[in-house]
Amino acid sequence: MSEKFNEKTIHRDEIFRGRIITLQVDEVELPNGKTSKRELIRHPGAVAVIPILENGKILMVEQFRKPLERTIVEIPAGKLEPNEEPELTAKRELEEETGYQCESLEHLISFYTSPGFADELIHVYVATGLSKAENPLPADEDEFVNILEVSLSEAEQMIESKQIYDAKTAYAILYLKLKELMKK
Amino acid sequence: MSEKFNEKTIHRDEIFRGRIITLQVDEVELPNGKTSKRELIRHPGAVAVIPILENGKILMVEQFRKPLERTIVEIPAGKLEPNEEPELTAKRELEEETGYQCESLEHLISFYTSPGFADELIHVYVATGLSKAENPLPADEDEFVNILEVSLSEAEQMIESKQIYDAKTAYAILYLKLKELMKK
Repeated sequence: MSEKFNEKTIHRDEIFRGRIITLQVDEVELPNGKTSKRELIRHPGAVAVIPILENGKILMVEQFRKPLERTIVEIPAGKLEPNEEPELTAKRELEEETGYQCESLEHLISFYTSPGFADELIHVYVATGLSKAENPLPADEDEFVNILEVSLSEAEQMIESKQIYDAKTAYAILYLKLKELMKK
Repeated sequence: MSEKFNEKTIHRDEIFRGRIITLQVDEVELPNGKTSKRELIRHPGAVAVIPILENGKILMVEQFRKPLERTIVEIPAGKLEPNEEPELTAKRELEEETGYQCESLEHLISFYTSPGFADELIHVYVATGLSKAENPLPADEDEFVNILEVSLSEAEQMIESKQIYDAKTAYAILYLKLKELMKK
């Protein structure tokens, strides 16, 4: 695509710089010469892990999500620390959240979660060869999770009942379904 | 799950109320009695449409995304207007962005895009029975898009080349792959 659709920043206001996100409002020049405002969230990026056990089930974590004011079930995930390689973040988050280590970690896909307003990029990995760590890394001190082993059919029920309700986990389940289908 | 992991809001600051998003910072009481801060983005929610043509290709739109400072290729999508039924939003966005109308619109899944910091919920639909509208609804005045017809193999190449790079579109492609596989 040509660059004819680019939006040039005329002016930028930084409204908020928090522990995790930064909010900026840009005044931009549109392709037709008019101006508009864009509300932009800066995020450090994140990893998510699809941990597949020998029995074919996925390890998931149940946790309270303040933006939703409820508990949902997700694949293990966490935000990138400064200068940390995503693969290391993935292994660390897997161990912190589930107590498991993996022999193999394969990059599956990366995607922006909400490109209309945020630059959060999630790198999704498949972890296999799982075993319980003898002395697992401790969880973050403001993080409280339940660990679940979920089969594909259970996961599909959990989508129906809205216990599973987020993009990366929905993607993971579709991936598992594809994998099962290819086995047949 | 019990409610033991709930985080009670002790204090809330509204930092910013924009055209699309609102930013709040909550001071919360954690399950262990300690306190922490949560940075929360409120979003009106959105729809996304997987428009499948008779020939099996998906209609996609190429557009500039200011948070990423680049152009990416996505399935048609847009945010909910106040009190608008998601199905109507889906039909409207499909027509505004691609010029196509659909005979059938089927709800596939809904997911939160980034439950760690935002409450944006996307409802994903599959649209079939597509035909070009005679007098299509005009695009939003600050929205400029290119329309593409993309096959599954082209879509997979576009993931490789990072032209396709967002959660809802990655989900759509996996869905199409599953559909093709089930045909065999």
